[in-house]
Amino acid sequence: MTKVYDRVALIGLGLIASSMYWAIKRAGLAGEVTGFARSAETRDTARRIGLCDRVCDTVQDAVRDADLVVLCVPVGAMGSVARDIAPVLKSGATISDVGSVKRSVIDAVAPHLPACVHFIPAHPLAGTEHSGPESGFATLFDNRWCLLVPMPETDADAVQRLRDFWVGIGSNVDEMDPDHHDLVLAVTSHTPHLIAYTMVGVADDLGRVTDSEVIKYSAAGFRDFTRIAASDPTMWRDVFLTNKDATLEILGRFTEELFALQRAIRTGDGEMLHDYFTRTRSIRRGIIEAGQDTDAPDFGRAQLDNKE
Amino acid sequence: MTKVYDRVALIGLGLIASSMYWAIKRAGLAGEVTGFARSAETRDTARRIGLCDRVCDTVQDAVRDADLVVLCVPVGAMGSVARDIAPVLKSGATISDVGSVKRSVIDAVAPHLPACVHFIPAHPLAGTEHSGPESGFATLFDNRWCLLVPMPETDADAVQRLRDFWVGIGSNVDEMDPDHHDLVLAVTSHTPHLIAYTMVGVADDLGRVTDSEVIKYSAAGFRDFTRIAASDPTMWRDVFLTNKDATLEILGRFTEELFALQRAIRTGDGEMLHDYFTRTRSIRRGIIEAGQDTDAPDFGRAQLDNKE
Repeated sequence: MTKVYDRVALIGLGLIASSMYWAIKRAGLAGEVTGFARSAETRDTARRIGLCDRVCDTVQDAVRDADLVVLCVPVGAMGSVARDIAPVLKSGATISDVGSVKRSVIDAVAPHLPACVHFIPAHPLAGTEHSGPESGFATLFDNRWCLLVPMPETDADAVQRLRDFWVGIGSNVDEMDPDHHDLVLAVTSHTPHLIAYTMVGVADDLGRVTDSEVIKYSAAGFRDFTRIAASDPTMWRDVFLTNKDATLEILGRFTEELFALQRAIRTGDGEMLHDYFTRTRSIRRGIIEAGQDTDAPDFGRAQLDNKE
Repeated sequence: MTKVYDRVALIGLGLIASSMYWAIKRAGLAGEVTGFARSAETRDTARRIGLCDRVCDTVQDAVRDADLVVLCVPVGAMGSVARDIAPVLKSGATISDVGSVKRSVIDAVAPHLPACVHFIPAHPLAGTEHSGPESGFATLFDNRWCLLVPMPETDADAVQRLRDFWVGIGSNVDEMDPDHHDLVLAVTSHTPHLIAYTMVGVADDLGRVTDSEVIKYSAAGFRDFTRIAASDPTMWRDVFLTNKDATLEILGRFTEELFALQRAIRTGDGEMLHDYFTRTRSIRRGIIEAGQDTDAPDFGRAQLDNKE
């Protein structure tokens, strides 16, 4: 692989930034990678595990002279970070992010940035239920999609360079406009997360079934929800607050469908249920064929268990 | 391992029965295992892949002289199978099942059975999204729970023997009364499945987001729902029709909670969302500690992908 940027700055050292660092190193995509996290404890951890070539104590030191700055903080914190770094950004640098919502990040970040930098919002569609600087790994983005959300007036060369960077990290890259991005993600990510959080909350809160029973008997389906519902609370709070309209729209559709199925159960309409459950199988096949999941039964848990 | 039953009959040769067969053979739990499936195609497949020591063309031939008969058909078919086999059951035999609902199976099966057999309903809490005779594997039940639902008057020796059998298959065994079983499973399995089916149905049906987009960008959370929503439609139709009351009760609680979270999003109540999302993390830790899931990030998908 060839170097795409001389100097890259990662702001916020959680799951995404730490995985990016290991993937950047794997492919030799940058000369030097600097890092900054607001918490001294996170910076200490990063230094201890060798995360980033140089961990800086101020966000300004981290971004100074960087050719690419990637904001990897919760969506709700993007605006204030942009304000803090704006005065020291290098002319011609690319500023990007990894936020799960794009319209609100653009609204929060763009007004702070000087005209001499290229702002290209991005969103890598990859993650796990773990968070923090020690949760990253180089293969997180392999064969996953990264969506770039450039504005029409953005410099084409800068976009191509960021695209090369994400391809080097292992991703497939697509471009999308911000509002469509936020709607697509409300369907493929935000609403599923809210539903999973809700189901786990219900189970936790039910007096007649103990938590111990829920935990022991979770393999019947529930545990797949708990992985999703174990994701970072701050990140997800910000996602729902900043992608409010699209999430509420999809939630409305979800509730409408759920009530239709609930009615079919109540009235004993087996044909409606069977037809519905048959239709949803084909989406799964599409995901396997598109390489976005493994066909190993049960996500291959049996194979993993046996390796231990 | 020692033999627990001389002859075992598996009725219905899908994921559960085929996994049971391989697990029985692995542990040497039975002298001979016979099998029956209603479809000639399934029987041919079973013979071709060596599933069961003897595949019979009638259900009566399969159960004749069996010391243990396990009904592995959809819940809605249990009653008619019980009626068909009742006249030829061996005196002293144990009749069990693997249905996901227990009260309705007892109501459908018990009236047909002669007094000279032991009826001990059971439910192994294990499964994958795959179905059919070729989907089984010996490790499916390892370290998963099997719930026995004996009636108070059931012979204790017969219960102990069935318990030994499931332990030999690899399971942990608990006993539960049928109504509590159906409520617990409504929480840990039935409602999560209905919700997953609904979410996948919504995504499939949304004109403004294409199926291709849903499939490509599913790694952001949605794909975990699609595995659940790819489960066997007939089995799940029967589950909802026969565990109607408990499912509707839990669905009511779910909707109530979902509306509370929806309201928090609409009103911008970030504190409520953050608190809720923090609470649900602890359930996940309990499941990992109880050995009911792997802590590998993303269910270990990265490891599996790399092995290919």
